[in-house]
Amino acid sequence: MSYTVLDEKLIPGYLEQIPRVMEVLGTSDELAITEIGDGNLNFVFRVARADDPKRSVILKQAVPYLRVEGEGWPLSRDRILFETRALRVYNDLVPQFVPEILHDDAEMSVLVMQDLGAVKVLRYPMIEGVEFPGLGTDIGKFLGETLFKTSTLGMESIARRRLMQDFNLNDELCKLTEEFIFTFPYVDHPSNYKNPPTNAHALNVFRNDPEYLKRILRFKELFLTKSDALLHGDLHTGSLMVEQNETYVIDVEFAFFGPFGFDVGKIIANFLMAYTSHFHRPGGPDYQAWLLNEAVSIWKAFEAEFLRLWDETPGAALYFEGMLEPADLADYKKRFMQTIFDDAMGFCACSVARRTVGLAGVADVRAIEDLDIRTHLECMNVDLSHWIMMQYDEIGDIDSFKATVTDFYSRQAPMRQEERRV
Amino acid sequence: MSYTVLDEKLIPGYLEQIPRVMEVLGTSDELAITEIGDGNLNFVFRVARADDPKRSVILKQAVPYLRVEGEGWPLSRDRILFETRALRVYNDLVPQFVPEILHDDAEMSVLVMQDLGAVKVLRYPMIEGVEFPGLGTDIGKFLGETLFKTSTLGMESIARRRLMQDFNLNDELCKLTEEFIFTFPYVDHPSNYKNPPTNAHALNVFRNDPEYLKRILRFKELFLTKSDALLHGDLHTGSLMVEQNETYVIDVEFAFFGPFGFDVGKIIANFLMAYTSHFHRPGGPDYQAWLLNEAVSIWKAFEAEFLRLWDETPGAALYFEGMLEPADLADYKKRFMQTIFDDAMGFCACSVARRTVGLAGVADVRAIEDLDIRTHLECMNVDLSHWIMMQYDEIGDIDSFKATVTDFYSRQAPMRQEERRV
Repeated sequence: MSYTVLDEKLIPGYLEQIPRVMEVLGTSDELAITEIGDGNLNFVFRVARADDPKRSVILKQAVPYLRVEGEGWPLSRDRILFETRALRVYNDLVPQFVPEILHDDAEMSVLVMQDLGAVKVLRYPMIEGVEFPGLGTDIGKFLGETLFKTSTLGMESIARRRLMQDFNLNDELCKLTEEFIFTFPYVDHPSNYKNPPTNAHALNVFRNDPEYLKRILRFKELFLTKSDALLHGDLHTGSLMVEQNETYVIDVEFAFFGPFGFDVGKIIANFLMAYTSHFHRPGGPDYQAWLLNEAVSIWKAFEAEFLRLWDETPGAALYFEGMLEPADLADYKKRFMQTIFDDAMGFCACSVARRTVGLAGVADVRAIEDLDIRTHLECMNVDLSHWIMMQYDEIGDIDSFKATVTDFYSRQAPMRQEERRV
Repeated sequence: MSYTVLDEKLIPGYLEQIPRVMEVLGTSDELAITEIGDGNLNFVFRVARADDPKRSVILKQAVPYLRVEGEGWPLSRDRILFETRALRVYNDLVPQFVPEILHDDAEMSVLVMQDLGAVKVLRYPMIEGVEFPGLGTDIGKFLGETLFKTSTLGMESIARRRLMQDFNLNDELCKLTEEFIFTFPYVDHPSNYKNPPTNAHALNVFRNDPEYLKRILRFKELFLTKSDALLHGDLHTGSLMVEQNETYVIDVEFAFFGPFGFDVGKIIANFLMAYTSHFHRPGGPDYQAWLLNEAVSIWKAFEAEFLRLWDETPGAALYFEGMLEPADLADYKKRFMQTIFDDAMGFCACSVARRTVGLAGVADVRAIEDLDIRTHLECMNVDLSHWIMMQYDEIGDIDSFKATVTDFYSRQAPMRQEERRV
């Protein structure tokens, strides 16, 4: 089928040609089809049997433009190829954390996946203050597994270069990240968020601190040139689907080979911005404590999983078995993890800045209607980005991170009572 | 023509089909054809008219194995594709330093190039102690131009990722570098050079110093994961063709996107190993002084050219014009060059180790017949690698490098008179 934009009318006829999908649905008659995409890029449909809604699939289709901006912002449909490739890797490495691929169609830019059922995009229950036991640990395990197993520690280099070749040309989406995370928030750019007091504060804090800007450039340079592992590339609380004791990672179209700390820092940043929002949102101090503990768990589980896999892998591209004595190998591993930790801190600071000052802020804060409250919290996030960045390589470990962040928040002017829990 | 290994008999018939080559030669009758390849990988022929030897071309053909090891070491002929691609980039960026491509033929794995004339592979006149005015400056300019213009400072990122895609699968040659520079010399491997006293000394100096080995791993990790620029990948004194006031770079089949410091450090290492050899070779202290000055010139010209191009380039992928004030930008540039310098020092140390203990030592030392003299100089190079590596990030600048190296050599036990200038 040559490329056609699918809609509710065309989807049944399209799906009935696909045996694997028909196994799941059983029939293409009387399907309930709902557009559920809330991402910025693609159209996403849930397709379920009207008479048996548990028999359902998810159909995702790329259109040749950036959905959130419309046809005036062209974007190659190739992004769905990269998403398909990354999801295949994840189906292989971490099937417990991702939807199963049922069908992919390069010509139609379509991907049909398992419907994960009654899960929700994490960001929204998090805004409401819902806890999910084990969430941080799940995210950390996902990161440990995917980052180690696509790194030079977990793969031989020829196989690894061949895998890199499948992702290197995900260049348009990498360019979006480059600009929206690492460039525009720090300069005067028309795409930036427009809230004059927040902008003025950011200008004062970020843009007038050359050392901060040079550190942003350090992380931008890593983003552009370091290919440690296959990254999700856009791991925020809107790319996670959760239920009690279930965690799934979705929206992998930004996948590329990049620096270890990027995904780790970005997801931790999202937990911190949620923390900030709960000075106003209903969760309050208890939920804030939970958020910070889960952010700590992300790192701890990531590190534990990464090191467990390393112990099981005698040698690959980087490390040649027997090169170091056990005590020296342990020291080498420690330094290796330290570098990832420091970089995660820096990328965390970049992500907080971007989601506060750039296009596409986090709903946790930007969806707050009261402008004074929103501005107050935005300025706090501006300060948080600066606070972390200016000590990214001195924080040292995850317990100090917790102390550092707690210290930061304890210095903030208290919210007035009427600003809280609206 | 389906793949056939060319020889003196087949070459005239092959070349006469190529108009661009016939323009140069004029005729395919009575050609003088000489195999001149002294590299490890391919066959290389000079093809000249018997009646007019100045009308000549160079024909290079890849065979499906590593030439130096024979058919028992298979190696994909694709390497000539990467060489062709890299040479096209260099024909574009630095035509003054490379042979012109006259013809390329993927099916036959053939590349026909301009004959550079009466130039010699640098290593051999260098062994004899011949000086070439401006040599280091030429090499530095070549490096500045090629590294800057293929970096994130000199290219936009989408174009750059597309260029990377052409080189990323040069995986077999990258694997050779990975193993022969960064792995085998530091472990007990059958491919290593076998000279018991040198091996014992290396074992003692390198292999029993875990800090040295961890630093080797640091540079191996950079080699495997950092894609700063399109590198030559094998820039040593055997990849340079020279005459008085002429410098050409050849043998670009190892080209890949790697860390800035790699080419720079490797070529400086070759000048240092030549320095060591002239304790015995006829050049003596004057030639050693010339070698060290040229090594210094490599860095100085590289840095000057890199910074000159940066000044001319208001912004590209990494740097967004106007992000930093002039004084801060100057500081950023300084730190940027410092990182390249430190890394070049580390890669220099790796290269000295590899060419001393690994397969394919430099003829400057390894071709010395007297075993005692050779061993003496090899052990000196083992110590030199260690000396540089253990302070790679403390040397600081090129003048201190000169002082550091001079200091190293001044501490060496003098050669006995009868060992000198044989």
